[in-house]
Parts: sequence; C-alpha cells; structure tokens
Amino acid sequence: KESAPKTTPVTQVMPSWNAAKSKAEILKFIENVSEEGGEHYVKPGDRIAVFDNDGTLWAEQPVYFQAMYTLDRVRKMAPQHPDWKDKEPFKSVLAGDDNKALAQGEPALIEMVKATHSGMTTEEFSASVRQWIHTAKHPTSGKLLKQMVYQPMLEVLEVLRNNDFKTYIVSGGGIDFMRVFTEEVYGIPPEQVIGSSIEVKFEMRAGVPVIVREPKIGFIDDKEGKPIGIHTHIGKRPIAAFGNSDGDLQMLQWTAAGKGPSLCVYVHHTDAEREWAYDRDSHIGKLDKGLDEAKAKGWTVIDMKAEWKTIFPEK
Amino acid sequence: KESAPKTTPVTQVMPSWNAAKSKAEILKFIENVSEEGGEHYVKPGDRIAVFDNDGTLWAEQPVYFQAMYTLDRVRKMAPQHPDWKDKEPFKSVLAGDDNKALAQGEPALIEMVKATHSGMTTEEFSASVRQWIHTAKHPTSGKLLKQMVYQPMLEVLEVLRNNDFKTYIVSGGGIDFMRVFTEEVYGIPPEQVIGSSIEVKFEMRAGVPVIVREPKIGFIDDKEGKPIGIHTHIGKRPIAAFGNSDGDLQMLQWTAAGKGPSLCVYVHHTDAEREWAYDRDSHIGKLDKGLDEAKAKGWTVIDMKAEWKTIFPEK
Ligand SMILES: [Ca+2]
Ligand SMILES: [Ca+2]
Repeated sequence: KESAPKTTPVTQVMPSWNAAKSKAEILKFIENVSEEGGEHYVKPGDRIAVFDNDGTLWAEQPVYFQAMYTLDRVRKMAPQHPDWKDKEPFKSVLAGDDNKALAQGEPALIEMVKATHSGMTTEEFSASVRQWIHTAKHPTSGKLLKQMVYQPMLEVLEVLRNNDFKTYIVSGGGIDFMRVFTEEVYGIPPEQVIGSSIEVKFEMRAGVPVIVREPKIGFIDDKEGKPIGIHTHIGKRPIAAFGNSDGDLQMLQWTAAGKGPSLCVYVHHTDAEREWAYDRDSHIGKLDKGLDEAKAKGWTVIDMKAEWKTIFPEK
Repeated sequence: KESAPKTTPVTQVMPSWNAAKSKAEILKFIENVSEEGGEHYVKPGDRIAVFDNDGTLWAEQPVYFQAMYTLDRVRKMAPQHPDWKDKEPFKSVLAGDDNKALAQGEPALIEMVKATHSGMTTEEFSASVRQWIHTAKHPTSGKLLKQMVYQPMLEVLEVLRNNDFKTYIVSGGGIDFMRVFTEEVYGIPPEQVIGSSIEVKFEMRAGVPVIVREPKIGFIDDKEGKPIGIHTHIGKRPIAAFGNSDGDLQMLQWTAAGKGPSLCVYVHHTDAEREWAYDRDSHIGKLDKGLDEAKAKGWTVIDMKAEWKTIFPEK
C-alpha cells in the first residue's frame, strides 16, 4: 500500500527526537488514524489534538512566564498606584524582591494578575503583551522567552497538522495573554487557544464599541476546567492530548475515554542539565497522580533527557 | 487582471438571489478583501464571518425552534416529574396549551429550559437533540425544521467559504443544541458555533469521566453578549456579520468598528406570503434600533421579498 502523499518519510519527521518509544508511539497513532479504511481511521474533522502550554510546549521554570509579565506590569504600573509600595505582594516586587512576592503563594499572584490584567480594553491588553513578549528574556538562560519553546514539540505540532489534525492549546494560562504570540511561536491561531480568563464587559465609549477587562476571575482552565474548556470551545472530544502535570490529568482522562483511538502523552521533565528535572514534589508543574495513571494506563511518557536530541530551537 | 481561480463567475454564485443591491454589496466586499495587493485586502486567516442563527439562517416563527424542542422535552420528561401537572408553565404544556405556556414570557421559558436541558451528560443531551431534529416538523409548513433554512443564506455561506472565510454561528440559542446539526445543515462544524450555555461540571462516574449539565444559566450570547462570545471563542474581530434583530446590533457595531473593511448585514423579514413579515413591533426577532442604525451607517439590509428568488431549499 502507498503512503499518503502528505506524509514525510519517518526518518525525516520529528528530527529532534531519538528513535525511541515515544516517537514510535506518536507516529504509529498518527498512521493508524490516518489510514483510510483502517480499523482506527478517524476522519480529518475529528482529528483534534490538545496541548497544555507551560511545561509542555515551552518552559515554566523558575516561574510561569506569565508571572514574569505580571511582575513587569506591577513595576510599570506602579506610578499610577502609590498605595502599592506599602501593600504586599506589590511592596516586595517594588522593593526588588520578586521571590518574596511569589513566595506569598497563588492568592497573592492572583491579586497581582487581577490588578495588572484589567482596567483596559482587550486591544490595549494585547498591545501590552505584544510589546513585552518581543523583548522579555529568561532570567537564567538569557534567551528571549519565546525561544524557550521545545523544538521536539514544535515538530509534533507539525507532523499532526501535516496529517490533518487541528492543534489546540488548552492551558491554565491566560487566553488573551497566549493569543498574542501562539500563532507566531506555535503556528496556532487565536481561535484554537483555550485558557483561563477574567471577566469582560462590552461598552460604547463615545460611540466606539470596546471590550473592557474587569478585575474579576472568570474561568479557570485547569484540572476539571480543561475538559470543560474543551467542551465549550471545541464541542468535540480530542483524540490526542499532551500535558506535563497533574493539572492535565482530567484532560487526558477525558481524551482517553473517547469511543475511538486516543493518544495520551505526558512530557516528563528529566533533564536537569539542559532544562530542569522535576515531577512529584515540584512547586510548579507537579506530576504525581498523572505519572501513576500514565503508567497504569500505558500512556506515552516522554523522557526528555533520553528522547530529545535538542530541547530548544538552535537559531 | 485575472480573477482568482476559486471564484465562480458572478452569474453562477448566489443563484437564489435577484441581481439587486444586497447581492452586489456582498460580492463586492468579498472581491475587495480577496484582492491580493488591493487596498482592502485581508489575509485569509482574518476573514472571519459571523452569523446569527434564528431568523438569519433559519426561520424563527411562530416560536424559536429550540422552544419547540423544550416543549417536546417537557412532554417526554413529564412521567418523571409528577409535580409538573400542577405547576406553571409545565401545567399548560401538559394540558396541551403550548401558547398559554409561552405567553408566560421569557422567565417561564427559561424555567422550562433549565428543567429540560440539564441533569444529563453532554452526550445524553446531544443524543436527545439528534433524535429530535431528524423528525421535528414545523407547525404550519409541515416541513422538517431543518429544512426551514434560508437557501439564499446557504449560498452566502458557500461563497464566503469558497473565498477562504471561516464562517461562525453566533446565536442566542443554546451552543450544545445547535452543534448537533450545524455541520449537516450549514456546513459549520461544532468548533465554529458560539451560543448561550448552561453551566456544566466534570466528574468521574465509576471511573468514567463525564461532563454533566447543571440547571443553571451560564452565558447568554445575545446583545452585549455577542461581541463577548466572539472575543472569547475566536479572539479576533470579524470582518463580516449577519443578523436580523436588535439582539445582533452590538455584534454588527463591533464588526463595523474594526480597522479594516467590514460588511454588516441585516436580513429584513418582509415577505408575509412566503415567510413572515415583521420588524419593529415583533414579539420575536424585533428589529427596530438596528434598522435605524443600518440606514444611518449604510449597512446592507436584505429585503427578503424583493431580493430572494426562493426562501427555502427546493428539495
Ligand atoms: Ca503545564
Ligand atoms: Ca435572530
């Protein structure tokens, strides 16, 4: 039988991957669902693949990149908020101690997100993120944050799309934050990005309609929220799902429970030298229950250290 | 200059339309945004067109078709709800007086929607709608409801898609209700349907993950909700918007306020003989402020009676 004309020979696809278990499992799945007349065939419109973002498509250490944006915004907006210099967690940020601010935990971070991600129109917010993402650098690697993406995962996105998959991001990160750069960085357009959101309202300002961001958390696209976000935005069950933490477990379970074939994949951070090594006890991207379930169910677990020839794009 | 290879000659596109103002305006817009190098060119990824559903793509008289589904569900579920026979608006429905039930207004309808659209998984709900839509008939025409779509609008969807537009439904109707049939009826896949929703929760039932519908209204995709639904689901501003009532006005305003070219269209129900004639004083699909604004702004207003050769598909 002939291979589909779109399919590049296996030796050329996913070139940053060693010829190991995960690459073989991913390609076998794609071959199965693409084989017309085959028992696992899935029609192109139902080839939905979902990807977590932080820790799955790009790095998330030492802190989520959106937290870095938030801290930068606190510094930038401080002149308009004189009270911040006496009020935690803002006070620590403005005193130059980001770690002390972040050590105050998730409620403190959410406080800063609400204060810095609202009070402007959606267009003003996008413009702010756009300006930031083109210059923001990683604190230890010195690379631009948008270059801290995983080259092997870009290759997975590519081989899926070459086989008529529609690729989505389903992340706990802010939907409007990610949409600014996902097309450039991952080739994923805004309408295929699902994430957490704050509430917005529509209003007319001097005859011009605007959508204004409110200081109120709307939807949290994490854990149980991920299948719900998928249901709301896509209305179909994915057949492939990629994550890296317990926050992705429900998304993988939802994907695995579909009637047809499915592919569930965890990116396991095992490379302390080229990236970071963390799982069960990590303060960020904790992978514990998910790792157990992956082993029990026979899901694909990518060993970054052993299976990835390169981590980040070379250029 | 040559026409783009995809473009069918104008005499063959939109064949159910008379060669009048609206057809010319729609085709001129498509030509402008598709002309590479032209001053109004829009790249394919940004060619987003949004369509209201009830009264824009299919009929909405004498009552919204989803209200018919709701009443049928009340009858079907009645044996499990003995209290309904003494409780309005259910009582009137079960006594065979649908009009009396509907005359109790929107709160009564919402009460019935909450009671009949919840308490089951998303898959059970879809199965119920799927079964219903294939047999439900219109009370006066006797046609299947899914044949009460506007043939001229199907042709607009087609010419837009042939010119690399992505077509979306943005409706006050239920998102999960519509998604069951929009692909078959309009060629619009579930992920391009935006609508009102009730709240859902994710849970594990005997190890199987399910999404369960709750008796609580979530998002209302009408009026100010339409630009918000568009922002949430698409994350881009449409360049073309089609509606038929004041409930679409904010969506059209949002579309018109984009930086580039835009097309705003109202379907005006002017044909009492072949369909229904209604606008400013209608109890359903009221078009009043919208009609004034369309005239003031020079938006396209389709005169159904004068401009449409046929209303419904022939077969
Ligand atoms: Ca993650
Ligand atoms: Ca309507």
